[in-house]
Amino acid sequence: MNPAPKTVALGTVYLVGAGPGAADLLTLRAVQRLAEADIVFYDALVQPETLRYAARAQKIAVGKRCGKQATAQKFINKRLIDAARQHRTVVRLKGGDPMLFGRAQEEIAALQAAGVPYEVVPGVTAALAASAQLRVSLTERGRARSVTFVTPRVGDGEPANDWAKSVLASDTSVIYMGAGQAAAIAAALIAGGKPASLPIAVVENASLPESRVFYTTLGALHQLEHRTLEGPAVMLLGEQFRASGTASVAAIEYERFAAKA
Amino acid sequence: MNPAPKTVALGTVYLVGAGPGAADLLTLRAVQRLAEADIVFYDALVQPETLRYAARAQKIAVGKRCGKQATAQKFINKRLIDAARQHRTVVRLKGGDPMLFGRAQEEIAALQAAGVPYEVVPGVTAALAASAQLRVSLTERGRARSVTFVTPRVGDGEPANDWAKSVLASDTSVIYMGAGQAAAIAAALIAGGKPASLPIAVVENASLPESRVFYTTLGALHQLEHRTLEGPAVMLLGEQFRASGTASVAAIEYERFAAKA
Repeated sequence: MNPAPKTVALGTVYLVGAGPGAADLLTLRAVQRLAEADIVFYDALVQPETLRYAARAQKIAVGKRCGKQATAQKFINKRLIDAARQHRTVVRLKGGDPMLFGRAQEEIAALQAAGVPYEVVPGVTAALAASAQLRVSLTERGRARSVTFVTPRVGDGEPANDWAKSVLASDTSVIYMGAGQAAAIAAALIAGGKPASLPIAVVENASLPESRVFYTTLGALHQLEHRTLEGPAVMLLGEQFRASGTASVAAIEYERFAAKA
Repeated sequence: MNPAPKTVALGTVYLVGAGPGAADLLTLRAVQRLAEADIVFYDALVQPETLRYAARAQKIAVGKRCGKQATAQKFINKRLIDAARQHRTVVRLKGGDPMLFGRAQEEIAALQAAGVPYEVVPGVTAALAASAQLRVSLTERGRARSVTFVTPRVGDGEPANDWAKSVLASDTSVIYMGAGQAAAIAAALIAGGKPASLPIAVVENASLPESRVFYTTLGALHQLEHRTLEGPAVMLLGEQFRASGTASVAAIEYERFAAKA
């Protein structure tokens, strides 16, 4: 049997980082790709204002925020490949940076297997936008030399608290997609030896006008589960995130949890 | 004695991330601030093409790449404060992101102490640009859940190899500003338990046309010290950085070290 003839891909798929949310934190290259795009597949976290740069493109929402994603991911992969056979410029627009918690590797593997040309356009990740908004550095010369970005899945069939090791070993940590598991995260890190007094800043909707910041400590972090968060949140852990009252941006709501630790 | 009357600051200092190098990886906000700037203090790593966006500004180089920086940093702090007393918009332009290995906290502390208004504009950091260029994700669902960014100072009067802990505990790591200490870095990580076979991609001048990539392993990393690097380099450590031959961008030179491990 002869192999089936390969369909020639006409277009290129660009995996583009949409940045943390504010449309003016897009890169010039991302804006250029959006302007050229024939079709854009975008995540739930991408802001409407960002999509306006894709003036002539067909725009298709493919994101889901949580839950069962495996089937959906395969469906997205297939749609990207199909789109590249019909369009010259296909953009896959992902919140933040595509290569950091963006599941880009699964799409890259599918594009590669299908022979579809692709490129990656990096973006500003939420941790950096949150740090900028707080005006507190992730690293500091002589004091915070390492920073870990991690996404925990507490009890997801993985080795229990395997995710915590890197947080325990780093000077500064940023936890992505962890707000819903705040109590379990705090318990794991305290059990691993982090002090209950460790300062934490939780930044919801980093870079957006509706952003909220909660200052707390590891010992009081569980209170976060009683809040209804209205957008994605990153947790920044480190001595430098003690509530200082110096954070800027008047429009943003800052709140301090009662620290019982 | 009465305190001396405070000079009122006229302007705002913007600590702006210039991104990894390619001018089109600036954010729209960075471009806007540069266009408005009266004066720009820029690092050595900032590309001339990037500075062109600061069309009407006085441009002052303040960066140094290595070596004794403490005095120079104080001098930069003073110049920023002085500039804010004479100009409306002062930009401090830093390679990559200001809050990640950018020594922003020292400038922020000085501006704060002097009562000068300031804001931070985040940028694309070199690790994300390198990952995009290699088309290999830093994280991967179920396989690489944590990534550490670290800058080692081997034997800098700090606890020996304290920096290595976070690398040892993370699935993926990116080492900034480590190329000159490749042999000592490899020795510390192997002593800590990382296998000599661990794949590493060294990306020099990430995002720029003259970028070079060296694929190697921890056991062969010391060979990097025999190369003359012509720009800043990040080292990406993780199983996914095994040389695959799939990396893109024809203009970029890819080279594989002879792995003796």
